[in-house]
Amino acid sequence: MSRSYHIAIAGATGAVGQELLRVMERRRFPAGKLTALASERSVGRTVEFRGEKVPVGLLRDDAFAGVDFAFFSAGATRSRQYAPAAVRAGAVVIDNSSAFRMDTSVPLVVPEVNAGDLAEHKGLIANPNCSAAILCVGIWPIHRAAGIRRVVVSTYQSASGAGARAMAELESQSRDVLEGRQAKPEAFPHQIAFNLFSHNTRIAENGYNEEENKMVEETRKMFHAPEMVVVPTCIRVPVFRAHSESVLLELERPMRPEEAREILESAPGVRLVDDASANRFPMPVEASGELDVLVGRIRQEPGNPRGLAMFISGDQLLKGAAWNAVQIAECLIGTARA
Amino acid sequence: MSRSYHIAIAGATGAVGQELLRVMERRRFPAGKLTALASERSVGRTVEFRGEKVPVGLLRDDAFAGVDFAFFSAGATRSRQYAPAAVRAGAVVIDNSSAFRMDTSVPLVVPEVNAGDLAEHKGLIANPNCSAAILCVGIWPIHRAAGIRRVVVSTYQSASGAGARAMAELESQSRDVLEGRQAKPEAFPHQIAFNLFSHNTRIAENGYNEEENKMVEETRKMFHAPEMVVVPTCIRVPVFRAHSESVLLELERPMRPEEAREILESAPGVRLVDDASANRFPMPVEASGELDVLVGRIRQEPGNPRGLAMFISGDQLLKGAAWNAVQIAECLIGTARA
Repeated sequence: MSRSYHIAIAGATGAVGQELLRVMERRRFPAGKLTALASERSVGRTVEFRGEKVPVGLLRDDAFAGVDFAFFSAGATRSRQYAPAAVRAGAVVIDNSSAFRMDTSVPLVVPEVNAGDLAEHKGLIANPNCSAAILCVGIWPIHRAAGIRRVVVSTYQSASGAGARAMAELESQSRDVLEGRQAKPEAFPHQIAFNLFSHNTRIAENGYNEEENKMVEETRKMFHAPEMVVVPTCIRVPVFRAHSESVLLELERPMRPEEAREILESAPGVRLVDDASANRFPMPVEASGELDVLVGRIRQEPGNPRGLAMFISGDQLLKGAAWNAVQIAECLIGTARA
Repeated sequence: MSRSYHIAIAGATGAVGQELLRVMERRRFPAGKLTALASERSVGRTVEFRGEKVPVGLLRDDAFAGVDFAFFSAGATRSRQYAPAAVRAGAVVIDNSSAFRMDTSVPLVVPEVNAGDLAEHKGLIANPNCSAAILCVGIWPIHRAAGIRRVVVSTYQSASGAGARAMAELESQSRDVLEGRQAKPEAFPHQIAFNLFSHNTRIAENGYNEEENKMVEETRKMFHAPEMVVVPTCIRVPVFRAHSESVLLELERPMRPEEAREILESAPGVRLVDDASANRFPMPVEASGELDVLVGRIRQEPGNPRGLAMFISGDQLLKGAAWNAVQIAECLIGTARA
């Protein structure tokens, strides 16, 4: 009989925590035991896993005895506070927060891109920012073939990136607007229903917000390409759960769209959706629930054979979070498909 | 007493036709008489203008006797069919369709950019594509100051660009999705509620759709810059009436964001919305109903003093259509503010 693993999820009741459970069921991840953890206010609730109700315990230092894999998805502060204890208890921590991503001693991994970096881990592995993960899956195969010098990317990010409360706000605000009532922003700083706005993270000195700076730094780290130029604009749109990205690449060598399509057609984690005659390209409703990232609208920059444009949609909660984390665990136990 | 003008509107019952009436009221355009025209199926209806009901007549060759300004907003086919008769009848035609925009003998005008081209008109003036008009207002002041070599632009286009029926579809589909019903695309080829998709115009040989090619060609024509590189990606989003655009410019000379802000602050037709500390930037709900185009999120491309990024929102039905058309007429009668 093959081995089974004791899994802990810190943040089990959150949007990503819930997706982690669904992905492990879907992938038949060999989880022998589940320890569901959350902060004080969720203790006493239960989460469903493989048809059973699992009680939610308190996230604390001594909650990780015997745990093989601890998935953290409870924010950077809690990761910083409790992940070290999980590592000391012998668990491999796969952290979905930004806490350790840029730590040089911590591998930051999208398996399709840099699964090799997992060999270096010291008990802690960082899961990238959702927008960075989705971008990287789509452009890595092109980078390998033709070298990317510069990425100009504008995002169309769903409400799910801000958690379950933000998704509920998109729903309730949409009802309000449709009924002629005023939209009342709570989870977001601005109206999200039938509107869009610059990503609601702090603007740094360089004029870019935190989400944008994550896209720059994390892409460079995963690609081992510290010189790669990334120019991001991160925008929140009234979509529930998949992020989309309009991308223009500047390559080191010319690449025809046909060649790019061929490469992407066989790239792991990518589904090519590029039917110009039917005007069918990646869309968030079709990416939602998919493990693969949809890539299409592939075309050359007018007059520039080194310029390649594409459009990407990927499920923010799956490849942008839960699925990538489970996939990292699959790589470590040797059942990965990537 | 100052002169008043006989106005005709071809397509008076459509989304843009209705906005033309509202803008003329708002601007107290000196309209002495209104002739409202539409195709067969709208004849017999009335439109409201300055508190009076005006009957809708049939759009036909002999409908333009005595008309001073004929605004056409009934699609390219009808413009091609009836605009020549209006010109022959002595009217100045301001055409909102794509029929004559790239005709070298027809001025294509955004008053803030190239009002001077109006002097060349031979009875017919073209109103640009909405995405091109909004883009041009935002980037022209930068072009004048520092020369734009290349524009990379990704759009976030509202349903209004596809007319009143598309706006109604966004509303009804949103209700359907919120009630758990299947979204049924009719006006659009794909679900628009809580989704987004590549602009639903035909993809040309070069891989770009018609909307994108219009942005390229029309921007070059209005800027008198046939060599300017424009790399557009046009995306439809679930927003009712304002278009937004994420823009990256490559300039001929370096320009600091502070300088760009100063220039835009005093640029005609532009309202600077660029408050990083409050995370407040252009948004479609704030651009809706505004004559000005909102510009903000101004920042340098990392490491490139010739790279300037910005985000733009403008009312598609106003600056992208009706207001620009009325503004052209204001220029011709000498009451323009631009």
